[in-house]
Amino acid sequence: MQRHPTTPELIQSLRSEMATRGAIPNLVFDPPAAPIQWHFEAGLPDPAFFPIDDLARIAEQVLRQDAVEGLQYGKADSGSILYGFEGLRQRIAERESVETGRVLGIDEVMLTSGGVQALTLAVQAFVDPGDVVAVEAPTWNLVLRTAQVAGAEAIPIPVDDDGFDVDALESTLERLAEEGRSLKLVYTISTFHTPTGVSLSSERRRRLVELAAKWRFVILEDDVYAALRYEGEALPSMLSMDEQGLVIRIQSLSKTLAPALRLGWVTGHAETISSLAAVRADLGVSQWVARIADEYIREGLYEPHIARVNALYRTKRDACLAALAKHCPDAVRSSHPKGGFFLWCELDPAYDGQVVQERALAAGVACRPGERFFGDPEEGRQCFRICFTTPPLEHIEPGIAALAEAIRASKRA
Amino acid sequence: MQRHPTTPELIQSLRSEMATRGAIPNLVFDPPAAPIQWHFEAGLPDPAFFPIDDLARIAEQVLRQDAVEGLQYGKADSGSILYGFEGLRQRIAERESVETGRVLGIDEVMLTSGGVQALTLAVQAFVDPGDVVAVEAPTWNLVLRTAQVAGAEAIPIPVDDDGFDVDALESTLERLAEEGRSLKLVYTISTFHTPTGVSLSSERRRRLVELAAKWRFVILEDDVYAALRYEGEALPSMLSMDEQGLVIRIQSLSKTLAPALRLGWVTGHAETISSLAAVRADLGVSQWVARIADEYIREGLYEPHIARVNALYRTKRDACLAALAKHCPDAVRSSHPKGGFFLWCELDPAYDGQVVQERALAAGVACRPGERFFGDPEEGRQCFRICFTTPPLEHIEPGIAALAEAIRASKRA
Repeated sequence: MQRHPTTPELIQSLRSEMATRGAIPNLVFDPPAAPIQWHFEAGLPDPAFFPIDDLARIAEQVLRQDAVEGLQYGKADSGSILYGFEGLRQRIAERESVETGRVLGIDEVMLTSGGVQALTLAVQAFVDPGDVVAVEAPTWNLVLRTAQVAGAEAIPIPVDDDGFDVDALESTLERLAEEGRSLKLVYTISTFHTPTGVSLSSERRRRLVELAAKWRFVILEDDVYAALRYEGEALPSMLSMDEQGLVIRIQSLSKTLAPALRLGWVTGHAETISSLAAVRADLGVSQWVARIADEYIREGLYEPHIARVNALYRTKRDACLAALAKHCPDAVRSSHPKGGFFLWCELDPAYDGQVVQERALAAGVACRPGERFFGDPEEGRQCFRICFTTPPLEHIEPGIAALAEAIRASKRA
Repeated sequence: MQRHPTTPELIQSLRSEMATRGAIPNLVFDPPAAPIQWHFEAGLPDPAFFPIDDLARIAEQVLRQDAVEGLQYGKADSGSILYGFEGLRQRIAERESVETGRVLGIDEVMLTSGGVQALTLAVQAFVDPGDVVAVEAPTWNLVLRTAQVAGAEAIPIPVDDDGFDVDALESTLERLAEEGRSLKLVYTISTFHTPTGVSLSSERRRRLVELAAKWRFVILEDDVYAALRYEGEALPSMLSMDEQGLVIRIQSLSKTLAPALRLGWVTGHAETISSLAAVRADLGVSQWVARIADEYIREGLYEPHIARVNALYRTKRDACLAALAKHCPDAVRSSHPKGGFFLWCELDPAYDGQVVQERALAAGVACRPGERFFGDPEEGRQCFRICFTTPPLEHIEPGIAALAEAIRASKRA
């Protein structure tokens, strides 16, 4: 038997523009990295807190009580195929109606394959090739890739301690107007932003919504970290300020419960959500998993779970900040987020950020390099992101100590 | 509290071309139809045969043994996020290597959200707006919608008892060439085609693969029904004949096991599969569900399950054919498929197909109207599809009797 024959050049020549823009050689099958002992890299919940017993019990319960519908595609005539299981959508609509002060119907909630599918559907629904979108700088690299696949220009807007710089956005809007161009969409991770951990202030949220109404663009509010708050008051979703149906809010169980549920959702005006449904390229999320999540929430297990992980994550954040202060007080300036998964660290110019990454990896410490969060590969090279939620608590201090050792060894000559 | 305010016209004006092409008013929240007693409409497995005990046991087993990885996103450095859980991909690669006589690597298998995501990814990966694709007439309406969202022209190719008419395709290729256009992709449900139940003959498969090599187009071979064979010999996948990497084969557990697993896969040359990965807009399928499926197959449960449902479905098919022969011997000409879910029925011109549909629904019998399977709404109006797998066996004879009654009452004046 032989390997499957082909002519790769032929396949490449047949690719669509979208696939050609999206192609990332060697993205997928990178050789395994050196063995890592201290995991600060990926943005993952602590697996020790996955609610295994509850998930196993409820998974079986749904199978035994509800398999006739719960293992099929969903009811075609109620929108439950494309939009997802009505029960969970109803529960989400009720919760968010209370939270936002707006009555949401189940046609204003659509379940998605994690928050990421919501992001890509929104971009496909509102962005044509050649269009302009605005993103935070730094930001989650997946939005940069999504914009690239869509053939859009992603304009970076700086982030400070109050989040997205709305003044800079306004200047950009004016500049674009002078050039005869317009902005179609703003993507913001408004609360506990990755990679920095900062949140967009209430005042800036109001201004951003006003700008959207004035300049007519869609706000994609990625709120997947918002429930993971360790101190301070909750900030209002921009959905509660929206008078035009321009805000799309993204939430997910991936960070709060478990990524492998692949369960997120969008809320927004029915007309806006139907725009995302129009480009949907699947038959919705699993009816089984949606019923599991619905039952988990219905039994009152979700809030206590979040309270439990928040207490743990707060301790981990504090341990991480303390370890940075102890082991590299002068070399690293870190953000001090009130929630979420991440610290954003900037190295003193005396240290070479690229060498730090190499030495850290060689010492078994993985952080995410800062340049992964910018469209311009020259930016962020003195920065890195630490995810403090994934490693066990007892790994944090020795892991940061090992990192500090790598930093000290990377002082420029 | 008030409903979420908006200006729908504003949202519509901001929609991308893709969303504008995809928008289907009232698709999603149709009012419920009249109460249906006899369900022959949707293409669903018999829920009485869902392997509840095994799924519940294995779901728990995966949670208890493997939650640290099995509830996360997957390993970034091995491709397991975008392509899916390696264990299942390895198992699929081994099985299909034996079946097709080609050694498939795990980079030649990608898991998808059912077969439908494979279809849409392939269209996005190879079809630009303005391109031409060929589909069977009749065909699954979702491929027509996918082509529409992509901005492509879908050329219908007739189907006879040996499937897709390859001569007609060749004439189309020549005509397109004369017009200076070319075909990018052929979509064929090659075995137990929906809605007709026919299969593409081995000879035509060979010719189709030759045409693809000569004219340089991609063959999307939707094989999701192939395992559901009730008689006759298995037909070779076109993957086994492919010398250029032009064949993409789609398979799924939705029809054989349960739709709510949302688990399908594509196989093909690594370069071809990576084209689909390039346009992928999610973070892969659930690691948990993929592990459940992998364990189910690993324990040797999948083949016996298929044998069990095939025995049942064969009995149902025969009951359905016998009931049609008994209750409407002259009014309906039906296909006689060797597997799959469907009978394709054509009414004698003496009966009005539209009136039959109305009267059947009023009598509590739902079949899928034939016009849903054509791009041209004037076609298929004297036809309908019967899914014989969904209803309990004892419903088939009385359901067809009620349908026959509706047919007799629909004789043209």
